[in-house]
Amino acid sequence: MSRHPHNLIDETIHQRTRLAIMAALAGAESLEFGELKAQLGLTDGNLSTHLSALERAGFVRIDKGFQGKKPLTTVAQTPAGRTALANYVKLLEGILTKTK
Amino acid sequence: MSRHPHNLIDETIHQRTRLAIMAALAGAESLEFGELKAQLGLTDGNLSTHLSALERAGFVRIDKGFQGKKPLTTVAQTPAGRTALANYVKLLEGILTKTK
Repeated sequence: MSRHPHNLIDETIHQRTRLAIMAALAGAESLEFGELKAQLGLTDGNLSTHLSALERAGFVRIDKGFQGKKPLTTVAQTPAGRTALANYVKLLEGILTKTK
Repeated sequence: MSRHPHNLIDETIHQRTRLAIMAALAGAESLEFGELKAQLGLTDGNLSTHLSALERAGFVRIDKGFQGKKPLTTVAQTPAGRTALANYVKLLEGILTKTK
């Protein structure tokens, strides 16, 4: 197995939609499902699928609650997610150094 | 279709092995197939497959020649590849701004 950094890129984060989700969550304490969906221009199904993958990896926390009688789902990055994203950015910067 | 930048990420370049290939080629006028393979820790088959995808997109030029009697394959980034990589890096930086 090669030690070249591209082999260490975490595909859970690298996938472009999940990367956009992780980046959006990095800039906020938490985001409401609908807000995230609108910000990234995703469908309910698409956002749900990618959030599930990120949740399984332990990178986001999904809280389902209510605002009055209306269901309210909020999403936040976990500390593990924050670390994984930081590692990802560092790896990517290393790979792209030569392109500058 | 959303105009969020993650939708504009070119999957041909974003795939992690192809990204590493493009980054390696950005730092050199051209690279010999075996050199690229060793640098990235790839198998012949893996590198060939990804180079074909990049060639189909017009991002690399593959030259098959001889050094003496030994076949020699060299790979170089095309101007279109250079532009695509630069656009990719710019898009990615935009998406990752919030994570800094």
